[in-house]
Amino acid sequence: MRTLEGVIAPVPTPFNENGDLLLEKLQENINRLFTAGVHGVVLLGSNGEYVYLSEEEKRDVIRAGMEAVPKGKLGLAGCGCESTRETLRLIDYAYRCDAAAAMIVNPYYYKPSMTPNALLEHYRHLANFSPIPIMLYSVPKFTGLEIPAPVVAELSRHENVAGIKDSSGNVVALHELLLKCRPDFGILVGTGSALYAAMAVGIKGGVMALANVAPRETVRLWELCRDGHWEQARRLQARLLPVNTAVTVTYNIPGLKAAMDMIGSYGGPPRRPMLPPTQEEKTALRRILFEAELVL
Amino acid sequence: MRTLEGVIAPVPTPFNENGDLLLEKLQENINRLFTAGVHGVVLLGSNGEYVYLSEEEKRDVIRAGMEAVPKGKLGLAGCGCESTRETLRLIDYAYRCDAAAAMIVNPYYYKPSMTPNALLEHYRHLANFSPIPIMLYSVPKFTGLEIPAPVVAELSRHENVAGIKDSSGNVVALHELLLKCRPDFGILVGTGSALYAAMAVGIKGGVMALANVAPRETVRLWELCRDGHWEQARRLQARLLPVNTAVTVTYNIPGLKAAMDMIGSYGGPPRRPMLPPTQEEKTALRRILFEAELVL
Amino acid sequence: MRTLEGVIAPVPTPFNENGDLLLEKLQENINRLFTAGVHGVVLLGSNGEYVYLSEEEKRDVIRAGMEAVPKGKLGLAGCGCESTRETLRLIDYAYRCDAAAAMIVNPYYYKPSMTPNALLEHYRHLANFSPIPIMLYSVPKFTGLEIPAPVVAELSRHENVAGIKDSSGNVVALHELLLKCRPDFGILVGTGSALYAAMAVGIKGGVMALANVAPRETVRLWELCRDGHWEQARRLQARLLPVNTAVTVTYNIPGLKAAMDMIGSYGGPPRRPMLPPTQEEKTALRRILFEAELVL
Amino acid sequence: MRTLEGVIAPVPTPFNENGDLLLEKLQENINRLFTAGVHGVVLLGSNGEYVYLSEEEKRDVIRAGMEAVPKGKLGLAGCGCESTRETLRLIDYAYRCDAAAAMIVNPYYYKPSMTPNALLEHYRHLANFSPIPIMLYSVPKFTGLEIPAPVVAELSRHENVAGIKDSSGNVVALHELLLKCRPDFGILVGTGSALYAAMAVGIKGGVMALANVAPRETVRLWELCRDGHWEQARRLQARLLPVNTAVTVTYNIPGLKAAMDMIGSYGGPPRRPMLPPTQEEKTALRRILFEAELVL
Repeated sequence: MRTLEGVIAPVPTPFNENGDLLLEKLQENINRLFTAGVHGVVLLGSNGEYVYLSEEEKRDVIRAGMEAVPKGKLGLAGCGCESTRETLRLIDYAYRCDAAAAMIVNPYYYKPSMTPNALLEHYRHLANFSPIPIMLYSVPKFTGLEIPAPVVAELSRHENVAGIKDSSGNVVALHELLLKCRPDFGILVGTGSALYAAMAVGIKGGVMALANVAPRETVRLWELCRDGHWEQARRLQARLLPVNTAVTVTYNIPGLKAAMDMIGSYGGPPRRPMLPPTQEEKTALRRILFEAELVL
Repeated sequence: MRTLEGVIAPVPTPFNENGDLLLEKLQENINRLFTAGVHGVVLLGSNGEYVYLSEEEKRDVIRAGMEAVPKGKLGLAGCGCESTRETLRLIDYAYRCDAAAAMIVNPYYYKPSMTPNALLEHYRHLANFSPIPIMLYSVPKFTGLEIPAPVVAELSRHENVAGIKDSSGNVVALHELLLKCRPDFGILVGTGSALYAAMAVGIKGGVMALANVAPRETVRLWELCRDGHWEQARRLQARLLPVNTAVTVTYNIPGLKAAMDMIGSYGGPPRRPMLPPTQEEKTALRRILFEAELVL
Repeated sequence: MRTLEGVIAPVPTPFNENGDLLLEKLQENINRLFTAGVHGVVLLGSNGEYVYLSEEEKRDVIRAGMEAVPKGKLGLAGCGCESTRETLRLIDYAYRCDAAAAMIVNPYYYKPSMTPNALLEHYRHLANFSPIPIMLYSVPKFTGLEIPAPVVAELSRHENVAGIKDSSGNVVALHELLLKCRPDFGILVGTGSALYAAMAVGIKGGVMALANVAPRETVRLWELCRDGHWEQARRLQARLLPVNTAVTVTYNIPGLKAAMDMIGSYGGPPRRPMLPPTQEEKTALRRILFEAELVL
Repeated sequence: MRTLEGVIAPVPTPFNENGDLLLEKLQENINRLFTAGVHGVVLLGSNGEYVYLSEEEKRDVIRAGMEAVPKGKLGLAGCGCESTRETLRLIDYAYRCDAAAAMIVNPYYYKPSMTPNALLEHYRHLANFSPIPIMLYSVPKFTGLEIPAPVVAELSRHENVAGIKDSSGNVVALHELLLKCRPDFGILVGTGSALYAAMAVGIKGGVMALANVAPRETVRLWELCRDGHWEQARRLQARLLPVNTAVTVTYNIPGLKAAMDMIGSYGGPPRRPMLPPTQEEKTALRRILFEAELVL
């Protein structure tokens, strides 16, 4: 199993104005990212609007996206569905497309039923039957549910569980998790604002929307941290903080896509019911990119 | 458009031990419900584990379920998906199966983007293009998001929006909503514990899991309220409260299905990752049904 | 022990522009309330800004307020402090001022330590040592903590616990509580919006900010419910809903006080850090009172 | 104004078994802390059970505590009350006892009224009239309310606002705050689990319960961070994480006090309604201290 580390971009899914898939744009974006130095991509993460795609479209994105991942680079596919059986089916497809691992968001709709035990059984079943490693995915701001730390620690003992993307942004929790999981368990921070602090506590990489908008800078930040240049790293992190906040909190995915348009990638509109940013919001967003020296 | 009122059962989706659909059991359960006097059924609500079904399975359930709905009775189909386009596609299928209306849960994954305006545009688009009336569905305990009252009031002006199922259990909010919506807007309470109090404030019916376990009693409660026999109604509601709590809060959907098995319907197991109740839980559940005089 | 029932007004604490206590205004307000027919008053509830008063001021309010309560009417004193010993001390003072009972908000600052067991021991200790009956007070919108129903049920077995003011507004929870507590336990609804529905499920009264602004109407609503005139009661409740929302949710305590000024009682400014309503807010508030026929 | 930095211990308030204040024990504990090298103490923080004390007792603690603070060391006093006027009165007393600054928790009871504007006006009024600098205190786990970052940034422009204790444990938020506040604004992390990561992003110190149980180790951790020995610091932080979790999350203040008893300080019982740890909890706690090499 490949170690999960480095800068991994959770790529958005490009649509045209009618909301139809643009698979070539997806591949072009992926090419640009790898050219800029990122170490991997995740297809069909939250930034990929995976909940807005039909099953067939999910397959199209996985197939087209994986084709664009160069040999030796990490190509991960978001395969989490609410039911265990649907998830396994999508994992199987990802395996046939040569995904390095399947990222599995925890089921969350029936919150009161998603006890630690139910989550353990779900993930164990997937890990037992998946032909590729699985990566846990905890993103409480969307799911309203966290994978509890003891569940993660327990699952880290399973050889087919490669790691976790933790999007809580809680650096202390990442530090504690690191001490509880098996040594080579791939703990990835899920937000670009926390990359520096997460690496300071020993985390080895992240899956970060920011990498879609500032791939070179994010990779540079990762390298500075890896090499222990903490002072320079901290300054670069500070420069990128407002950008990350803009594309993940203030303007969300519609803002992330608009920012990609501004830097010369293809962002395009989000799918409905998400609304594109207003003109004022775009102006504010462009200013933030300008101040971070990402656009002229 | 048919007025939305009366006792409507959100029917569970029956699976065998392997998790495969049992469409005949679904039809038998629906038959039993109508024989017992319920006024309508909802397919693919939260109790129908709709998030666990593939698109194809959802169609199978709608088709088979609608076949079992007698002429003149209400057959509603849960068609809410995260994306506007997926939702419309499922609505179209429900229309072809003669659903009286499509129940549409609000999109909820991208919570910060689901502003009142985004929800308004989503529902308006659906209402404009749907060949059948739509019914809003707000169930914050699962979605973590409420359809704001002003959005509901605004949508109640649209002639193709038939009503709302509000599962918050907040009786005062139902009373306030009643005063803000158009007079014939079908406001339905979404939990059997609140039927009596909801009807006391002027609500005309409910979509209630309880109706799957105690259909005759729930219809009787509805009739007592309709006819102003408040004292009797209150006593019957009190008798049913522990049952409702058991099948919606304490033991959730797995408990609802187990209770259906106990009363002679087909409940069967939930789909994974939901876990069936333990033997102890079943014993406690049976005792609750016994004390409410629903089993011997 | 007097049965807790009827319309009880949680009286605000009047201040002048400098924030000093105006005890005479308090007494005049109380006189007006009893003249209008309310059955009781609570001093130092949340509407009484009790957290803004020094210990000495609390005593002044209890003494002056109780003096204004006519013989045979209910005069309750909010005595809840974070610590058990401080609470007991204030209860003793309330006893000496002839308070009929002491209202005790649950301690809430150290939320994780306020386990059901800790709350049980706290209230039991108070009930054992208090010379007057105590009334529980659960107001999660301010405290962030609810007194769990099993704790309330358990405490209702104690002969010196007279009842509870439940400000959650959850009518179904009130109904369930009613079935779990001893028959003469005084369960009071804590918000005027829910009075009608609460009485429909069997509750006997309420402690309601609304009673400060519309005392006659609130008493009339209570009487209509008591006498089973549900149709008239529902219409009156509907008329009062916007007023209650205004003085408890939209404009809070500053709005409640402003509304009291408008109807001819003394409201005055809230204490800092609470800010008085703006001129626009006052205009909107007056319009709501006008539409409910409470001002000309 | 003294710069707020270094290791500051929020000292518990010692009680005997009857719950009476033990001021000598407080002074002995403070002596031990300064002997162990801490840079300052806070009296009447959350760990000081300040909400359980009468006004007179608060004064006693401030007076006795400040007497024990050596010249040139930081002695801070928690003076936050719900009302602006009560807070000012306690600040005045702290000033007369030579407190270096007054720590002011944000008012939180009337959450909906505590708008950014209300908080700004409250703190500005205090800063304008306080004879000593004030330090903001945000502790959402107890108050249910955060001082919003823009409010903190705005207040950092006031020359009599010395800094903030932020107990959210959100390291990214601390990093962002650092970039928005005036350069010498004293931002202190409020939990020992985050000291290392907070200092990695540029924070200069903390107010940490941990310092009461492991003063030398906490100071050592601070020095390692200050001197850029990140690798050693990270290992020491890892060793202290379980202790911090135990005395702040798992066993809370009763656990903190029990741990102080175990290391030879005076902890004693918490005041009611908080309950002391059970024998099993104490055994588990001692084991955690033992594994961190804090007891034999």
